[in-house]
Order: sequence, then C-alpha cells, then structure tokens
Amino acid sequence: MTVRVGVIGVGTIGEDHLRRLTQVVAGAEVVAVTDVDLDRARAAAAKYDVATVHLTGQELISDPEVDAVAVCSWGPTHEEYVLASIAAGKPVFCEKPLAETPEACERMIEAEVSAGRRLVQVGFMRRYDRAYRALKDVVDAGSIGAPLIVHCVHRNPTVPGYFQSESLITDAAVHEFDILRWLLGEEITTTSVLVPKRNRHGGDLQDPVMLILEMDSGAIVDVEISMNIRYGYDIQGTVVGEDGTAALGDQDAVVVRLAGGTTSPVAADWRERFSRAYDVEFQEWIDAIAGSGVPAGPTTWDGYAAAVVANTALEALRTGTRTSVKLVEKPALYDQ
Amino acid sequence: MTVRVGVIGVGTIGEDHLRRLTQVVAGAEVVAVTDVDLDRARAAAAKYDVATVHLTGQELISDPEVDAVAVCSWGPTHEEYVLASIAAGKPVFCEKPLAETPEACERMIEAEVSAGRRLVQVGFMRRYDRAYRALKDVVDAGSIGAPLIVHCVHRNPTVPGYFQSESLITDAAVHEFDILRWLLGEEITTTSVLVPKRNRHGGDLQDPVMLILEMDSGAIVDVEISMNIRYGYDIQGTVVGEDGTAALGDQDAVVVRLAGGTTSPVAADWRERFSRAYDVEFQEWIDAIAGSGVPAGPTTWDGYAAAVVANTALEALRTGTRTSVKLVEKPALYDQ
Amino acid sequence: MTVRVGVIGVGTIGEDHLRRLTQVVAGAEVVAVTDVDLDRARAAAAKYDVATVHLTGQELISDPEVDAVAVCSWGPTHEEYVLASIAAGKPVFCEKPLAETPEACERMIEAEVSAGRRLVQVGFMRRYDRAYRALKDVVDAGSIGAPLIVHCVHRNPTVPGYFQSESLITDAAVHEFDILRWLLGEEITTTSVLVPKRNRHGGDLQDPVMLILEMDSGAIVDVEISMNIRYGYDIQGTVVGEDGTAALGDQDAVVVRLAGGTTSPVAADWRERFSRAYDVEFQEWIDAIAGSGVPAGPTTWDGYAAAVVANTALEALRTGTRTSVKLVEKPALYDQ
Amino acid sequence: MTVRVGVIGVGTIGEDHLRRLTQVVAGAEVVAVTDVDLDRARAAAAKYDVATVHLTGQELISDPEVDAVAVCSWGPTHEEYVLASIAAGKPVFCEKPLAETPEACERMIEAEVSAGRRLVQVGFMRRYDRAYRALKDVVDAGSIGAPLIVHCVHRNPTVPGYFQSESLITDAAVHEFDILRWLLGEEITTTSVLVPKRNRHGGDLQDPVMLILEMDSGAIVDVEISMNIRYGYDIQGTVVGEDGTAALGDQDAVVVRLAGGTTSPVAADWRERFSRAYDVEFQEWIDAIAGSGVPAGPTTWDGYAAAVVANTALEALRTGTRTSVKLVEKPALYDQ
Ligand SMILES: [Mg+2]
Ligand SMILES: [Mg+2]
Ligand SMILES: [Mg+2]
Ligand SMILES: [Mg+2]
Repeated sequence: MTVRVGVIGVGTIGEDHLRRLTQVVAGAEVVAVTDVDLDRARAAAAKYDVATVHLTGQELISDPEVDAVAVCSWGPTHEEYVLASIAAGKPVFCEKPLAETPEACERMIEAEVSAGRRLVQVGFMRRYDRAYRALKDVVDAGSIGAPLIVHCVHRNPTVPGYFQSESLITDAAVHEFDILRWLLGEEITTTSVLVPKRNRHGGDLQDPVMLILEMDSGAIVDVEISMNIRYGYDIQGTVVGEDGTAALGDQDAVVVRLAGGTTSPVAADWRERFSRAYDVEFQEWIDAIAGSGVPAGPTTWDGYAAAVVANTALEALRTGTRTSVKLVEKPALYDQ
Repeated sequence: MTVRVGVIGVGTIGEDHLRRLTQVVAGAEVVAVTDVDLDRARAAAAKYDVATVHLTGQELISDPEVDAVAVCSWGPTHEEYVLASIAAGKPVFCEKPLAETPEACERMIEAEVSAGRRLVQVGFMRRYDRAYRALKDVVDAGSIGAPLIVHCVHRNPTVPGYFQSESLITDAAVHEFDILRWLLGEEITTTSVLVPKRNRHGGDLQDPVMLILEMDSGAIVDVEISMNIRYGYDIQGTVVGEDGTAALGDQDAVVVRLAGGTTSPVAADWRERFSRAYDVEFQEWIDAIAGSGVPAGPTTWDGYAAAVVANTALEALRTGTRTSVKLVEKPALYDQ
Repeated sequence: MTVRVGVIGVGTIGEDHLRRLTQVVAGAEVVAVTDVDLDRARAAAAKYDVATVHLTGQELISDPEVDAVAVCSWGPTHEEYVLASIAAGKPVFCEKPLAETPEACERMIEAEVSAGRRLVQVGFMRRYDRAYRALKDVVDAGSIGAPLIVHCVHRNPTVPGYFQSESLITDAAVHEFDILRWLLGEEITTTSVLVPKRNRHGGDLQDPVMLILEMDSGAIVDVEISMNIRYGYDIQGTVVGEDGTAALGDQDAVVVRLAGGTTSPVAADWRERFSRAYDVEFQEWIDAIAGSGVPAGPTTWDGYAAAVVANTALEALRTGTRTSVKLVEKPALYDQ
Repeated sequence: MTVRVGVIGVGTIGEDHLRRLTQVVAGAEVVAVTDVDLDRARAAAAKYDVATVHLTGQELISDPEVDAVAVCSWGPTHEEYVLASIAAGKPVFCEKPLAETPEACERMIEAEVSAGRRLVQVGFMRRYDRAYRALKDVVDAGSIGAPLIVHCVHRNPTVPGYFQSESLITDAAVHEFDILRWLLGEEITTTSVLVPKRNRHGGDLQDPVMLILEMDSGAIVDVEISMNIRYGYDIQGTVVGEDGTAALGDQDAVVVRLAGGTTSPVAADWRERFSRAYDVEFQEWIDAIAGSGVPAGPTTWDGYAAAVVANTALEALRTGTRTSVKLVEKPALYDQ
C-alpha cells in the first residue's frame, strides 16, 4: 500500500520534506501540495511531479486523494490544519512547534480525545537519531542504574539575524525538552535559566544560556545552549546514573592525523547532523500509517508538554527565578 | 517514475534485498520474483506483495513489466542472468561475486562492450558506507598527500562451519580488493599471503591471514583477515599519506562508562555494520536507473578485477609466493 | 643543593609524601619527621631512613637541619604549624585544607604579609596534572575565545562510611574551586547547590549534588559531584569559549576490543588518577625552594579563597539559595 | 643510599641523561663525567655541579667514587666502556645501540657470563612507557587470547639530513624489535622489508618501509616506518589475539573542538612522546642498583638480539627476501 500524502507549506523545511517523501521514503507518494505562496507551491509540484496544487490547506485536507497530511507551514497556521486533519480523520504530521501556545495544543488534545484515536505526530526528529536511540537503549536496559543527572549541550555555529534571546529556548532548547521527556520517560517539573557572560559573536543576544531542569523523579538536568560557537553544530547528552553513565557518541566517520593533531570533523549544521533522523522519522511515520494506522512518534501531548516547558522557561528567563511547569491532566489516550 | 524491478533469487540475501527494494528504497517497485525453489519464490511474493512469480530467471528478464533486474541467486548462475539482462538491454544489479571465474567476467565485459553501454552494477556495498565515503573524500582532497601505505583490518566474530581457508580470500578479502581499487583509484598489481599462528577457535581453518598487496602506484597494503575473533565484526582502514593519515571512524553511537571502563559497542556482524550501506547502494542504483539510466556503482570491470585479484591471492596462498595480478586491457567503456 | 625537609604527620597521606620526597623527587632529603603518634613517626623514620624524630611539630620546625616543612597532619593543627614555619622563615608545604576556617587562613595571610614574602604552598595537586596543564595552555592561548561556561565532573566510585553530605563540598568540590580559579585566573563570586535524586548506594548521603558557580567575568560553571558511582574515579572538565571548547583528555594508556566493545580503563581511585600530579607537585616545590626560594604553587591566598568558597557553598546547601562569596581584599603579595 | 653515577659522553642524549640523573631521579648523584670533547665535559660538569671531570672513560670507570656508569658516548665506543665496567664489577647503563655489531654484543655477553652476574642495562626506554606497560599487562592477563598478529606504526615528522635508508631499520625499527620481544616474550625469527612508493619529503631516502616479522610462536608482525610524515611523532601498536585486541592508547591530555573539528594534539617528536619513559627508565635503574644491585631492564642479551634482528633486516632490505634471524644459544644468566 502506498500512503498518499498532502504537504501544506513548501518553504525550506516543507520542500525538504517533500523531497524526502518523494525520493527517500519507501511506500509514500506526495499527491498534493499547497502553500501560502501559490507560485512556490506550483514550482514545487512541478519539480517533484506532484499531481495537484490546492489553493488552501483546508482544501488539501479534504481532498479524498490525500490519505495523510504533512503540515510544514508557518507556526501560527498549525492549529487550524491539525484540527482540520483530526476532523477529517486523517493522520497528520506537524512540524514543531505543534502550536504557538499551550492553549492551542490543548485544543488539539481535546479534538483528538474526542475523536477517540491518535492522529497527530509532532516533528521532534531527534527521537529518530541513531545515537539518541542507542543512548535510550542503554538507559532503559538499566545497567547504569536510575538516572540522577543529565548533561546536555546544544551548540550552533551561527544564528540568523532575526534570532532573539527567547529563541534560544523556543527554537533550540525545545528539542532538549522533548528528548529529555522521551529519554527518561517522565515530565519536566521546574525550569531555571542562568545567563553567563555573552559571546561576542552574538551581539545583543543573550547567548549562551544554561538551563536547569528538574524531572519528576528528582533527576536534575543542565542544558547548555550556545548559538554562535563557530566551530560547528554539536549536540551532546550524558545520562548520569547510580552505577555509570551513558552518552551520545560522536559517530565519527573519519579520523585524520594531520598538522600536529588527530581530528574528526564536527557537523557543520543541524541538517548534516540530523538529516538521517528526518529520513527515519518520515519512513516510520509512513510505515505506521500503512500498518496500524496510528502514528508511533511524538504525540499531541508531547507537543503540548514541550510548549508548556518552553513557556515556563521563558518566564524563568524573564524573572530570573526557578519556575514550575504546570500541565493539565494527561488524557488516557496518551498512555498507550 | 517508479523503477519496476525483478528479483532473481530470494534466499537470505535476496529476500533482504527484496525487502529493501519494497520497504526502504524510494522510487522502486518489485514486480516479479523467481527462485530455483519456486515455493520460496511464491512465499516471498506473497509476503512482499509482488505481482508475478516467474518460473525461470530468463522468463523474468524478458518480462516487459520488468525494467531492471537484481541477481541474488547462487554464484554459478550469475553469468547466465547477467548476460541475458545485457542482451535484453536492462540494467542489472548482480550480487558479488559477479561470476565464479575471471573468464566468465570477461564474457560479461565483452557483451557489455558490444552493447555499447554499461548496464551492470556489482554488489560491493562498502562503496556506499558513510565512513568509507568520508575516508575517500579526505584522500581525494589531497591534504594527506599521495597514499603510500594502507592498513586494512577485516574481522568476524565467527564463521559458518562450511567456511574454508580459501573463503578468507574469496568471501572476505574480496571486499578489500574492491574498496582499495576504488579508494585509491588504481589497480592491484601483486598479492602475497602470510599465514600466522592459527586462532584456536578456527579449528583447521587457516585463520587469520595477512595479505600484502602492491598497487600500481607503488603503494603497499596490508590486510588482516580474522574470522573467529569473537569480540565482534570490525572493519578498519587507514590510508597513510606523505603528510598525514586518514582512517575509517568507528561511528560510535553511544559511549558507556561502567564497571571500570569507558566502552563503545562494536557491531555484532556485517549486517549491523553495513545495513545502511546496502540501503544506500540500492537507492542510488534505482536513482541512477530512473535518471541517466546508467548505473553509477561498481562495474563489470570492477567485478572482473576483484575476481582476478582473488584468484591471484588464492595462488599466492597455495604457493607461498608473491604473485602478479594479470588483467586484460581495460575497455574504454569503463573509463567513463 | 639538596633541600632538607621535615615532615609533620606521617599518616596515610603524610607517609605517602615522605616516600615521595625520599624515593621519587630529586634534590630532596627528609631529615626529620614527627607525628602525634610517636611510634608511627619512629616506624616511618626507620622505614625511610630519616635521621631525626621530633617530639613535636614546633620542635621540628625550629630544627636548624630542616630547610623546609611539609605539614601533613590533622587539619585542625595546620594553622599552628604554618604560622610557626612562617615565623621561622621556612618554606612550608601544607596539605589541603590550608585551615579549618577562613579566619585561620586570614591569620596566615597576615603573618606572611608581615614577613614580606611567600613561604606557604597549599596541596592542590591538580594544578600539576598533565591534562589540566594542557587544558590551561589551550585556554590561555586564546584560540577558543573568552571562557563563558565550564562543565566539571568529579566522580568517586565509593566513599568512606564517615563521609557527610557536607564533605561533598569540603573534601571533593574544593578541588574544583581551586582548579577553576587557577584555570580561569579569576575569583568565584556566587555558589548554588542543587540536590538531585539520591544514589541508592549512598544511603543517607545527599549524593550526587550539582553546584553552580559564577565567576567574576560572568562565566558560569556547573560541577557534578558524584561519590558512589561505582564505575571508577573520573574527573572531567570542559571550558566552553566563544569559538570552541577545550576539555581534559582521558589519557587512555590502552584500548581493548573484547566481548562486543571497545574499552579503555577508568582510574580506580584518586591515587591512580593523580599520583603523578603529586610527584610533580613535590618536585616543583623542591625545585622552587632550591632555586628562587619562593614556592610557585598555590598560595595562602588560594587556600583562603577555596576555604571561603567552600563555606559559601555549605551555606548554599543549607539554605537552598544562591550565596555570594565574600573575600577580604587581596594583598599585593599575592599578585606576583 | 645514594647511587653515585659517572656519565661517559655528554652530547645531546648524554647531557639530557645527566640532567635527568641530577634533577629528576631520586637517589642518584652524578659524581663524574667525561667526553671525547673535554671542554664539553667541563661545561656540563659546571652546569650540573659534578665534582670530577675525567680525561677518559676508562679513568671514570675505575674511579672508586663511581658506583655505576652511564655510557652515552658514540656507538663505536660502547663496547670498550661496557667491557671495562663489567671488568670493574660496576653496573652500567648503555644507550642503544649496545654495540655496532652482533659480535661486539657477544663479547659483552661472554664477559658478563664470566663475571657471573648481570651488570648491563640497554637503553630501550619504551619498556618504561606507561602505554606499553598497560598494553603488556592486558596481553599478559590473557583475556585477548594468544597473540596472532601485531600491527606497529612508527612515524617521525622529519629526519636529519644524514639519515640513510638503513637508518630506518637501525635507528627507528630497532625500537620495535626490542619492544616486540618484550611484549610477546619471545624471539623474532624472520624479517622481510617491503618498499612502498617513496614520500616526496624524503628525497632519496627509501621512506616509508614496511617490515614483516615472524615470531617464534608463529605470530606475524607488520611494522610501518615513516620518517617524514610531517604531522607529528606517532607510535602505535596493536596486538591481535584470538578473542580480542589491545592497542596503545593515545594518552590524550586535551581535546579541543575548534574550526570544524574535534582535535587532540599529537606529540611533536620522540622527546615529547617518551621523556617520561626516560625518567622512569633511570629511576628504576637507580632503584635496582640501590636495591638488589641487579639492573631489571633490558639486558645484554636483549641488546644482542635487537642487533642481530637489525642486521637481518638490513640484509632483507638489500636482498629483497625473507631472511632468518640466527641467534647464538641464550646463556642461562639471561633466563632469570
Ligand atoms: Mg523537526
Ligand atoms: Mg554485497
Ligand atoms: Mg592534595
Ligand atoms: Mg633510549
């Protein structure tokens, strides 16, 4: 069975996913696209041989040729398209952030709970990364004992000019919020944000920041977010247990001895680091739809929880205090 | 455009490629299968939803629904199917070994040269491995200078009972023969085989062996082949240049600190180590067929050269002497 | 010139230093020892061929045969012996802690300032570790830019039964307090102590803890202290700069591939990890005395600052708040 | 007890050992020096405060103030001084090569055997290197099984202008000859020398070379000798056993992430790589003399065996054939 996908939004990330669904993933066919810029939608359709260009996302969602929807449009539009997909009973992949506000996420949760089944998957691609999966396997196996501390590092060489200090939390640290919840299988309960001396490359940006997160179990996490550290894109993570530790490997493909040093390359950017994770993310999404019909990836609840933690951390940044994460009660739908 | 593939031979490796073409690779559809064991062919067809089961490979090759052929049958049958595919003007992927003898490979070369275009790709999957590609990029960039020495290691934890001392060369070292030719862009000119003290786990098997290869440029290669080294499947390669060295990285996904040590897992077997390389191998094969129509991977010439080097090394093993590799003249078709 | 040393206190660490001064260090001779347990002093003198056993530390210090004093006795006695050594105008090495209280350290500072020259060196041996020195060289060279964040890890496999939660700060973290001041060349200004879920191996001990330190420059430091992590003794440190990072290497002496993994040993305890640093510490102390006469290692001021930071962190642990470090004005003597 | 040493030859290596015995090693005093250049001897004596300058080595050896002799003079003079030391019944450390010819070594063996006790230690400092010792510990523990293959790498960034192709064997590979015998506890039985394409930085020098050694047990060793590889001084060694492998660690002191890569420094030259091994070598030599009186390091037999293997390898290089190592019978004196 081929899953027929409609893609809403073919900007940078949307076109990349269109390419992925067309040229990388098995078992999928992109049958329809749309975009707020219809010329861009038409160009993408031509390039990837997509049959139909819809005028609106709503039209695409209701197209009977479309089995499943990928929402890659501007953040503020996510809620509308996800709710429409749920209403149409179609599986929907939504790029992060699931929505702009926790309240919008709650509305999606309510819609999905009413529908009585999970249809939504949020684009937290790190869960599909080979290194994170190997790390989780070790943690779950229990050999290092109960996790007590986690050290996270999230570094970018540069950021776009429009990047704000808040973006370190909403665009960058949000990936750690999700991956920590997944890795440890529990919720984040408090956030604090420490602001070190600024990197001269970052101008007015409060860069770096260090977040301190407390988990439901009492485990404590520190997260370094550095956005202008020049040398490369580097994601690190170490779980400190009672008996030992487990850390993401660097997955070095080559080791060079030259000019006084032994060197392995660091990824240049997030695309290079996580491109394979994106591929796996979409392959597993398609496989789940073609199989059980229920997406197995990050849920609406996961998108909601990440959004609430991000909001809480923004408040911690503003106030300089340790701030509690307040979640609504988790519907049973998400316990499965 | 979807490439419609027929698969000849659905034993272990054949079924794995059938799965790969169906569930992993984009742009491919397996439309026909056959096998010397027709029940096995029918079972595979049912499992992977393949439309047609052919009684013979020849029938499959001439099926107009089949755009391209994957030959995964028993080695001695390769020649017949490859020649038939060339005669039918269809792209054909042939698992290694391309043929049992250099003479059979030469007949394929002649057929392809007569046909005037390249149709054959041989299953040397290492060329699609991320680490080997990163290594080749460094070598080609020239920063380490001209390659002078290459150190290769090829280790298996265990081997099947039927494994012979000759198999260390024909089944194992043959991968190094191909990858060295590709990595350095030149032919192997002589082979020697050194026989160390035997591994007690290998019984009568002459295991390990160490091969010494001389390249056309004068570079010298040592290849350790160890088939019973228990700890895991481990492929290493280091190119020693005039100014520095470049080596395959271990691609560690996770690093664990436990019980007195810092440990990264080693692959358990070749499947684990190279499964992703096989995926990329088939994706690029399909992409090339759908694109230019000319496969971009290892050619008939490459299959021939590897076969001649293997034969030469077998003679070196038997005679205990340094033995010269004798190749026919390389047709211009393979210079492209 | 041979430096004639008197050793006060020949318990575990004292006897180890006696051995070191006798059997490892060039240019030194231990001419006198004493201990609160005179039998122990006599046994040590016999074992290491020391000429004189004194009844008291004061007597040893005033012995004209003694050029320099090593104070390795119980912490509460340090002040008396250091002050007496200063009064006698003799160089004195004092094991950490320099004194039990900041006030006692201040009295030593006053005595030394009155004497008009530096005579005291405190036993912070990490400054003599090859890895820390290589790390400092990189930081000082400036290539990674200004330090913004430092990540520290300090892990012990087990602790003695008498170990208290406060000891994680006064015995363990105190090493980080000193090394951070030395590495970054600046004072610590605030401390916070976070208390994660406890390690089941630690019983009632609050283990691990995570300290957050702010430096005068605005750099922020996190320090993980884990005292029961079983797998080994492990000291890590990473300085995050504006352009890159520098971290302590693991100094692996051997790498073993066995049983599914690639493993390097971790040190079993602090002796194994830092025994060479202790050797260098004493060699450089002796060399400085034989040379300029002024010890080049950690000063009374360094011992004082570490004591104040430790006291501040203890208060932070008790109160659960971020607590400021308050130092007296630094005498010019320590700017040299 | 202080061991009073006389040093013969205070050229580069001799002065370095004079410094070491004076400033690094405990329990030693250099009481006499001499040199073919007496001005150089007088200058060294003044610099390191040595009491006596002798006119000749023989005079130094017979000086009753001299307990032990260190021979650091020109190779051709070694035999005379070692024989004289044996005759005088004094322990003698002799820098490598022990002698210019196997015959000269045999004469030393005869003298020592006649004397009835071991007095000579040869300057193979690698046996004192922390990494080699850790490697030997693993091999001896038996966990990797019997050694079957050893891979060695010996790289220098540049060589002096007078360096000859033969020197790759006599100056460089000779260290591997000794360390392999020590590591595996057995003799080398045959040598072959392979000559790859030359490094352009080496001019007329046959650089690199690859040696193949067979051990008495049947283990096979490959040794890469590269003398102009620019990037640094790099010594590698991997023992391949039946169940696993063990390799020298790189002992990285610092790891830097900068400019697209993760880098650890490689040693600039042999001094940096092995300076600590030299220190330990002399400390243990002094300790053995002060203790049992019998040096515990590489013996006259070891110096002889290395010389024979080097001669054999030179013949292999000249003739291009596999050449057998022929040793005289080993006197029982060296079995202890
Ligand atoms: Mg995403
Ligand atoms: Mg293959
Ligand atoms: Mg100390
Ligand atoms: Mg030496």
